[in-house]
Amino acid sequence: MKTITKNSNIQKIMDGNILSAKGYKAGGIHAGLRYNKKDLGIIVSETEASVAAVYTQSLVQAAPILVTKESIENSGKLKAVIVNSACANACTGEQGMLDAYEMRNETAKKLGVDQHLVAIASTGVIGEYMKMDKIKKGIETLTFSTSQKDAAAFETSILTTDTGTKNCAYSAEIGGQLVTVGGAAKGSGMIHPNMATMLGFLTTDAVISSADLQLALSQSVDATFNQITVDGDTSTNDMVIVMANGMSGNDELSPAHPEWGTFVELVRTASEDLAKKIAKDGEGATKLIEVIVEGMPSMQDARAIAKTIVGSSLVKTAIYGADANWGRIIAAMGRSGVVFNPNDVDIYLGDILMLKNSNPVAFSEEDAKLYLENSKITIKAVLKEGEEMGMAWGCDLTYDYVKINASYRT
Amino acid sequence: MKTITKNSNIQKIMDGNILSAKGYKAGGIHAGLRYNKKDLGIIVSETEASVAAVYTQSLVQAAPILVTKESIENSGKLKAVIVNSACANACTGEQGMLDAYEMRNETAKKLGVDQHLVAIASTGVIGEYMKMDKIKKGIETLTFSTSQKDAAAFETSILTTDTGTKNCAYSAEIGGQLVTVGGAAKGSGMIHPNMATMLGFLTTDAVISSADLQLALSQSVDATFNQITVDGDTSTNDMVIVMANGMSGNDELSPAHPEWGTFVELVRTASEDLAKKIAKDGEGATKLIEVIVEGMPSMQDARAIAKTIVGSSLVKTAIYGADANWGRIIAAMGRSGVVFNPNDVDIYLGDILMLKNSNPVAFSEEDAKLYLENSKITIKAVLKEGEEMGMAWGCDLTYDYVKINASYRT
Repeated sequence: MKTITKNSNIQKIMDGNILSAKGYKAGGIHAGLRYNKKDLGIIVSETEASVAAVYTQSLVQAAPILVTKESIENSGKLKAVIVNSACANACTGEQGMLDAYEMRNETAKKLGVDQHLVAIASTGVIGEYMKMDKIKKGIETLTFSTSQKDAAAFETSILTTDTGTKNCAYSAEIGGQLVTVGGAAKGSGMIHPNMATMLGFLTTDAVISSADLQLALSQSVDATFNQITVDGDTSTNDMVIVMANGMSGNDELSPAHPEWGTFVELVRTASEDLAKKIAKDGEGATKLIEVIVEGMPSMQDARAIAKTIVGSSLVKTAIYGADANWGRIIAAMGRSGVVFNPNDVDIYLGDILMLKNSNPVAFSEEDAKLYLENSKITIKAVLKEGEEMGMAWGCDLTYDYVKINASYRT
Repeated sequence: MKTITKNSNIQKIMDGNILSAKGYKAGGIHAGLRYNKKDLGIIVSETEASVAAVYTQSLVQAAPILVTKESIENSGKLKAVIVNSACANACTGEQGMLDAYEMRNETAKKLGVDQHLVAIASTGVIGEYMKMDKIKKGIETLTFSTSQKDAAAFETSILTTDTGTKNCAYSAEIGGQLVTVGGAAKGSGMIHPNMATMLGFLTTDAVISSADLQLALSQSVDATFNQITVDGDTSTNDMVIVMANGMSGNDELSPAHPEWGTFVELVRTASEDLAKKIAKDGEGATKLIEVIVEGMPSMQDARAIAKTIVGSSLVKTAIYGADANWGRIIAAMGRSGVVFNPNDVDIYLGDILMLKNSNPVAFSEEDAKLYLENSKITIKAVLKEGEEMGMAWGCDLTYDYVKINASYRT
């Protein structure tokens, strides 16, 4: 697997979203699962798209996860993905499976396609049954207006405790054709790997097989969505799904293609963009925390350390309190399970050196406090074990996290 | 290794502490490391005691941990353990090691014993140097009054953000002699395994070799101190140490002794008592959470699931908010890394059944809310995989946890 490298060919599309790539439609409506927020959304590809997905690695997987897996394994292609918020349809037994199948099959029927060309996703409260009468009416409304191109409505319909929509799009010239990857995502509690840890939807007009798309997605997810954490809890419903409808007309992409690296980087860039947006909008968060770990023998080790730091409750509360308590950073590193020389570590908060060769450095508390009042905080740990680096993203732990989660269900 | 079983021979000693076993002295003073709280304490055995200890499994280990290990490895016996709060002497480089050696050697000199007969422990802020002038003066005062028998002063001197002292003592008749185990501990942040996860001190008058004492301690710690979590962060300074001075006059204990099980249970009972006190006094906690997992093929698997549940931020906040959100419990189980059938799980909150064979059960929200307003909450998960059970303890996640940790250092 090639090392991921930045590619200057990649352009960010201002106000880009899941409709930036050619040949997609999307919309969202209020089906009545929630009181007054859009709660049912759909993305439809004009053609049968190649598809790849990653799912929660929890042993407890919600019905929509199981049904979507079945769709993708059966068809290897996808026409649409339909998503509801408010109800996770998780831990709902046989009834939950029946409901999930009905949601998929109703959508397929309305779109006039085979049931295995439809994926479904759900997010919300665990252990409650789907209000299928409202879902079914909603599907009718949603699929009737197949001409709709309303990315914002889709982005809104998938949210739960998120404070805002999350989207992006990037493009690159590949083999003389402009290839675009766009995305939408939702967070923002129960955010932790492994796998998707939230709902993420990517659309691209690239020409690529489902198998190769899966390669590109998995590699990107490991470096991005799997490197964010809000609260260490992995959801039963996590999923990232990508559709590639081939409408850009590029030569078919594969690992043998000279610009394969560009395409992977395109997917990774869009994934990182959405992942950071999820981390920043973690429940109750006031700050995005970015952790960079350098100087490890492997990317995996560097990532594991970075993720342990960004997941530490004590680091998160210190950053909330603008307290330059670097001791909590090295304590987190020590329990990461990764082996390194604890006597030769440098730690920076922003540009401020706190620890040099594992010895405390005198620094200005005032400068540190000032830095920690920014809305994006970078922690960098430099080890002397190798040449690889890894990153992770998270957020501070605040009173509002407790407030939101002490009464989410009621 | 024998399965741990409850033993009716074991008696709790009301108001018992580290001086309940024969032949120990203890005290604590204000050495000036903190503004106005006792911050330096000592336990002295009248004889050279057998000794066993478990330490933090963090790769980053504080100087006092390294020095205590050296003491115990060299002598296999212990005369005293001296403890300071306020400063962890962790991540302090070579100077920290020199300070730790000086703390140990000064204490040994004042007590007139070999340096390897002294253990040291420190707890407090990471990355600050020890105020050795104050420590040295303190050691003089502390060791001068060798007649002092003030367990409460010791218990106070070791605290940091704890809201109260933690002690206990239990005794049992073994071979016709009364054997007593007493203890003191401190929490209450950076509490998570592996190993000790806090400071714990046990004293016993049992006759036992250091090697067998280590067996009994390790087995007990796995079931108790290693099964508590406050915030998932493992400290650099965790340690549990037990001294056995042989003054009860029992026949020497060993795994071959017919009442070995009673002794192990005595140590385990005292350890569980202290562990629960630490969990209940977790930073900002209002409730003790006890998790019982039944029906697994191995104790280890049952414990792993129990600990994942009790460590979940979402479970902790739900319990703080008295919200019977059992979906978060099964979600935590799913990411525990332990394999079980997710379609056949029962979950209880107290006596209230929430999930039966993985299907939601209708329950009275009012009754559940009433139950969740207790100061001790029991979560029970019943699986159908085997006969073993495991327990874990923790606390709710509250506004005060955030408050305490957003400004601990300053």
